[in-house]
Amino acid sequence: MYKPKVGIIMGSRSDLPIMEEAANVLKELGVAYELTVVSAHRTPERMFEYASKAAERGLKVIIAGAGGAAHLPGMVASITTLPVIGVPVKSSNSIDGWDSVLSILQMPNGIPVATVALNAAKNAGILAAQILATADDNLAQQVSKFKNDLKAKIEESAESLKSEGYPSTF
Amino acid sequence: MYKPKVGIIMGSRSDLPIMEEAANVLKELGVAYELTVVSAHRTPERMFEYASKAAERGLKVIIAGAGGAAHLPGMVASITTLPVIGVPVKSSNSIDGWDSVLSILQMPNGIPVATVALNAAKNAGILAAQILATADDNLAQQVSKFKNDLKAKIEESAESLKSEGYPSTF
Amino acid sequence: MYKPKVGIIMGSRSDLPIMEEAANVLKELGVAYELTVVSAHRTPERMFEYASKAAERGLKVIIAGAGGAAHLPGMVASITTLPVIGVPVKSSNSIDGWDSVLSILQMPNGIPVATVALNAAKNAGILAAQILATADDNLAQQVSKFKNDLKAKIEESAESLKSEGYPSTF
Amino acid sequence: MYKPKVGIIMGSRSDLPIMEEAANVLKELGVAYELTVVSAHRTPERMFEYASKAAERGLKVIIAGAGGAAHLPGMVASITTLPVIGVPVKSSNSIDGWDSVLSILQMPNGIPVATVALNAAKNAGILAAQILATADDNLAQQVSKFKNDLKAKIEESAESLKSEGYPSTF
Amino acid sequence: MYKPKVGIIMGSRSDLPIMEEAANVLKELGVAYELTVVSAHRTPERMFEYASKAAERGLKVIIAGAGGAAHLPGMVASITTLPVIGVPVKSSNSIDGWDSVLSILQMPNGIPVATVALNAAKNAGILAAQILATADDNLAQQVSKFKNDLKAKIEESAESLKSEGYPSTF
Amino acid sequence: MYKPKVGIIMGSRSDLPIMEEAANVLKELGVAYELTVVSAHRTPERMFEYASKAAERGLKVIIAGAGGAAHLPGMVASITTLPVIGVPVKSSNSIDGWDSVLSILQMPNGIPVATVALNAAKNAGILAAQILATADDNLAQQVSKFKNDLKAKIEESAESLKSEGYPSTF
Amino acid sequence: MYKPKVGIIMGSRSDLPIMEEAANVLKELGVAYELTVVSAHRTPERMFEYASKAAERGLKVIIAGAGGAAHLPGMVASITTLPVIGVPVKSSNSIDGWDSVLSILQMPNGIPVATVALNAAKNAGILAAQILATADDNLAQQVSKFKNDLKAKIEESAESLKSEGYPSTF
Amino acid sequence: MYKPKVGIIMGSRSDLPIMEEAANVLKELGVAYELTVVSAHRTPERMFEYASKAAERGLKVIIAGAGGAAHLPGMVASITTLPVIGVPVKSSNSIDGWDSVLSILQMPNGIPVATVALNAAKNAGILAAQILATADDNLAQQVSKFKNDLKAKIEESAESLKSEGYPSTF
Repeated sequence: MYKPKVGIIMGSRSDLPIMEEAANVLKELGVAYELTVVSAHRTPERMFEYASKAAERGLKVIIAGAGGAAHLPGMVASITTLPVIGVPVKSSNSIDGWDSVLSILQMPNGIPVATVALNAAKNAGILAAQILATADDNLAQQVSKFKNDLKAKIEESAESLKSEGYPSTF
Repeated sequence: MYKPKVGIIMGSRSDLPIMEEAANVLKELGVAYELTVVSAHRTPERMFEYASKAAERGLKVIIAGAGGAAHLPGMVASITTLPVIGVPVKSSNSIDGWDSVLSILQMPNGIPVATVALNAAKNAGILAAQILATADDNLAQQVSKFKNDLKAKIEESAESLKSEGYPSTF
Repeated sequence: MYKPKVGIIMGSRSDLPIMEEAANVLKELGVAYELTVVSAHRTPERMFEYASKAAERGLKVIIAGAGGAAHLPGMVASITTLPVIGVPVKSSNSIDGWDSVLSILQMPNGIPVATVALNAAKNAGILAAQILATADDNLAQQVSKFKNDLKAKIEESAESLKSEGYPSTF
Repeated sequence: MYKPKVGIIMGSRSDLPIMEEAANVLKELGVAYELTVVSAHRTPERMFEYASKAAERGLKVIIAGAGGAAHLPGMVASITTLPVIGVPVKSSNSIDGWDSVLSILQMPNGIPVATVALNAAKNAGILAAQILATADDNLAQQVSKFKNDLKAKIEESAESLKSEGYPSTF
Repeated sequence: MYKPKVGIIMGSRSDLPIMEEAANVLKELGVAYELTVVSAHRTPERMFEYASKAAERGLKVIIAGAGGAAHLPGMVASITTLPVIGVPVKSSNSIDGWDSVLSILQMPNGIPVATVALNAAKNAGILAAQILATADDNLAQQVSKFKNDLKAKIEESAESLKSEGYPSTF
Repeated sequence: MYKPKVGIIMGSRSDLPIMEEAANVLKELGVAYELTVVSAHRTPERMFEYASKAAERGLKVIIAGAGGAAHLPGMVASITTLPVIGVPVKSSNSIDGWDSVLSILQMPNGIPVATVALNAAKNAGILAAQILATADDNLAQQVSKFKNDLKAKIEESAESLKSEGYPSTF
Repeated sequence: MYKPKVGIIMGSRSDLPIMEEAANVLKELGVAYELTVVSAHRTPERMFEYASKAAERGLKVIIAGAGGAAHLPGMVASITTLPVIGVPVKSSNSIDGWDSVLSILQMPNGIPVATVALNAAKNAGILAAQILATADDNLAQQVSKFKNDLKAKIEESAESLKSEGYPSTF
Repeated sequence: MYKPKVGIIMGSRSDLPIMEEAANVLKELGVAYELTVVSAHRTPERMFEYASKAAERGLKVIIAGAGGAAHLPGMVASITTLPVIGVPVKSSNSIDGWDSVLSILQMPNGIPVATVALNAAKNAGILAAQILATADDNLAQQVSKFKNDLKAKIEESAESLKSEGYPSTF
């Protein structure tokens, strides 16, 4: 039976193109996840049930993305004791993303949300893996390899600039 | 038996000095209210119960004040169908009040919160009275009288400036 | 004879595509409304007349939308004692919508405007219905049904994600 | 009989410490002014009357100061054809002054307000004098002298720094 | 010989599409103007000469538009005693227009700039006419007629909404 | 031998009054921590060494606080694969805290920092415990108890309001 | 052998279209430069090596561009004693460029970064030349000529407006 | 005869407490400087003269500090070809410092200002020294020593935390 460790939820299906990047990076790192739509404002009971059963269902980390007055990450964090990662999504009619950033980040003392950058669902996935990796050496190596690949890409792009004629003696 | 029509709730007792102004203006206008502490983040079940029983307990309007990532007004609005008035409170560690303003104002389609100005609990009380007054002519007259008093105070201060020697021919 | 209960006004015809959403949701909820153009800056007398006659013409709630230095909602609220719902419209040359949001929201003590999110005329319509529903049980049921439909749509989109192969055990 | 040319109005008596600076600089420049309280929100009829009679009462320029959702300058400008100078006042509960700045500055096409800096009532007075000086050579000389005094003060402070031992060869 | 009363200057030719609106409205109101490019940063001597000779060349008002760190309006105001109207232009690479707005608006005591809304060169033209009209009754009537035309357009658009079937009893 | 699991670092000793709250809550929850000063800008080598040896020294989570252009959390996250929690500190000369918030939050894809609210070191400590609790049931119970205590405090303050005479039927 | 004096680095190859403008203006001014990709977050060791060897490799000035939480300029400045010019790049998912501006500008006491405008890599190149010109009279003349060319372009555009019929007596 | 290499200017004597820090650090590093008051707005001719004679008077770098609509750094940069370092000063009535930051930073292409953090005159002094050190090895060593002292202070504060009982194994 499929046993997801990371639950990815979003406030609206329209957030899927952003939030799918969290799923993709978890797949790449070999972490079992699940993904669904849970709206704090339109389905508050569903949100309560999701959050309150998350731990017993075996989830270890929750990634929640939402836009505007984004209450999903904070409300889920208020109900579960699992670490919750919040992804501010820049929705249409957002005031430049400030609304979702501040609604997710500025949680009161006692109820943290681990906030990542605007639209940075990929980073939410990596952070979830890093959290799980604190107790999983294999996964820690996967994360390490992932970061090395990033490094290699930068070095390659530096090399390719040289070969395109941009001067560099470094 | 006391039958409050307006429920005033706040996320923390530290919001009382601000939120009490809503109570005071309702008292002045003769509207029965109740006032208590309900935290979306620290007491989510209490918040759910408050919001879901508000209508059957006879409340007609809810005034909810909170600071920072202020989820109380929006979450209550997601559970009840009563009109919810949100008061952004400028708490310590707030980013100049922008966090509570945007967390309360920028609700998604379907779940409005009637937002008033930063710290403007007095206006929340007046707005609650105006809402009740749509079906209560006596109260409408109270509100009208209240506004006339405001007008009179401005006119008095104009007069007093004159008598203090500030030139004016108007 | 048509007896509108909600008056929808906007500062300029160019606000119609936004403000029409208020009309549409009121129609859906069975609330009689009227809609016209009233500019605080270009037709101040018309604005005064509209606001001062609104109550005697039978209106119960006014929805006012405007962009930039948006004075229409606040000025109407200063003249009538009816509840006024303000819709900040993000006009061209707006500074990201901040101007209309702050011009409508930050009203002084004594004269509240029930402000909704940027461009959120739909929520203004729902809020108007919620206000009328405080004295109209049939309408309260309509609003309740409306919210249940929102819930159902979220649950359907959760189901459809599953059927498209996104893993979820919830 | 006293014939003021510049009308100074403010939304609340609490704006007086700021707005008095406009009066003081006009006195210094020998320009007749009047000063009173007119609130767009609390005394809309008084505001209408003030604005619509300003020209026939002999005023040439109006200086209007207000804080928060500051509608006074823009509304007066919508009613009169006299030039209106707006002074954004940073009131308590203001969101750092942004609300009054944007409410006054961002007027729609057709109805300008000559906006000066936050709390800069002194500059409003100087600007009023500059406007009147376009048709008054004596006043133009007063303004010119005023600016030369500013210059002299800077040059004196440069000298005094030297005499206090700060090195300078300029 | 052509004797312009209003000088329109801009920091870069790329500001012309915006700044031309000031010229157009002045033409419509029958006010003689001139228009040229003067850059505070790229041609500081030209700027100095323009500003210091403006009054003797017969100009009564200067309209200066610029984007980014917009120093043109303030520097011209520091050199001339004529009233200077500043138009913040939203240039490419601007930080949402905030840079030009604040660079023009927030002048120190002693040196006002009459700032209009972002990109609002049309309003700058109207304001210039209003300033000249303080000493020119014919022009005052032109401005009055201009405002009446604005009013008529709003009233027409209200009528046309009715004839398109939007309900209104006002 | 003392084996800290959470490393708390800060960019300057002046951040200690804020950052100590992370230490205090970890002590309360029974989590071994260490605390020191590491400046990305003034001691870059020390920062490199700290970050690159953190995992082998047995740390599982790093909490990094800094103000202004706050590079410490992000740079540590770039060197280690441990989860890094960033605390934006509102330092003197900060631009209202926006600088540290954005410098910590807006990390590029690949290198997440789990950002908490401005000055919210206490929440950083709780989040660190939640992360460790994903593999430590005892700690999970401690966190759960901690949240129940928060809940109890809210309920007590609701009771105390009642006993002070604030009306409430809930 | 090619001996670059100015090192241009950027956090990602996607910054090249912006950062290339620095290279182009340096070429135009006859200043030897090099250009490569160095990421503070993805290649921290490469960044350390670049910064710590810059002076001994003969570089005199470093231009570093980055977006979002832009740590490259500040970290390089923390390692080298060469002057570092920071270019905030407005990347996708940036919060309007504020994040890169503040991350680069708001450096703590002791470690300055010479920050230029958003996306203003051209100005970074000019500033680098001005710095080198403090000890190179030939280069100072080049910079002077460059500025004269800017002036000539403004004067030409003023002339061309005249010949297109825009009235001007200046 | 005293031959200053760095000219420190400020728009108003009230900026002295901030700007003096630039002087102090230059003294500490053994760099000859001068310091005076030059206002772009109140003494434009003095500003022109200062900027146009700076190079021939032997200055190599100019540090200019100003608040509000801060035009001094940019205008000086437009007249001289020396590198100009701009210090945004948070003056009273500033809008949180944003006005001076943006007025100094957002210079158009062709005329860079090397902007440092809000109120960071100390960093302006260090940057000036770094610029001069590009052609002065002794000074480069002074700067290097200065940075080592910063490092030592951080390491000392880390030690002192240990001796005060804060746990650390690093």
